[in-house]
Amino acid sequence: MIRHTVVFRLKHKDSSAEEAKFLVDAKILAAIPGVEKFEQLRQVSPRNDFRFGFSMEFADQAAYSRYNDHPDHVAFVRDRWIPEIEAFLEIDYAPLS
Amino acid sequence: MIRHTVVFRLKHKDSSAEEAKFLVDAKILAAIPGVEKFEQLRQVSPRNDFRFGFSMEFADQAAYSRYNDHPDHVAFVRDRWIPEIEAFLEIDYAPLS
Repeated sequence: MIRHTVVFRLKHKDSSAEEAKFLVDAKILAAIPGVEKFEQLRQVSPRNDFRFGFSMEFADQAAYSRYNDHPDHVAFVRDRWIPEIEAFLEIDYAPLS
Repeated sequence: MIRHTVVFRLKHKDSSAEEAKFLVDAKILAAIPGVEKFEQLRQVSPRNDFRFGFSMEFADQAAYSRYNDHPDHVAFVRDRWIPEIEAFLEIDYAPLS
């Protein structure tokens, strides 16, 4: 199992229509084959300045790679993520064996 | 629900006995009242230089605060976390309503 997470801050104003639209439209990622346990989350710690997070799980690295290469993911990153995200950090977890 | 996560890098050498001992001893946190779904994870993304993560969930902010104030947590932070951790980032999530 690989848990892929990304914590981020949008360029949009807090609680704006643009913020809401980004979050709704990002749900397209949940439909990409191999994506399990897709979650959209609010980042609530005062110890960093990110505002949201996405989390999803893949069975293995091959499923994760297929997601990365999927046209819907590639298009989302190009058309929405890069233009609308101010800052982000990717953190991926595997079970500690 | 609040999901408290911390991603970190130890001062110890990779795969050292000190590293293994830290991870085993950190399981004391899982026994603190209110802690649910405690996980120890390996950070595997090449896009950051953290090596491990802990994740746990609390029913609400009151349970999270009781954990923070619990003597076992306070002692772990003082005696193990501060001396042995090189870098860390706390990220806390709540469901996106």
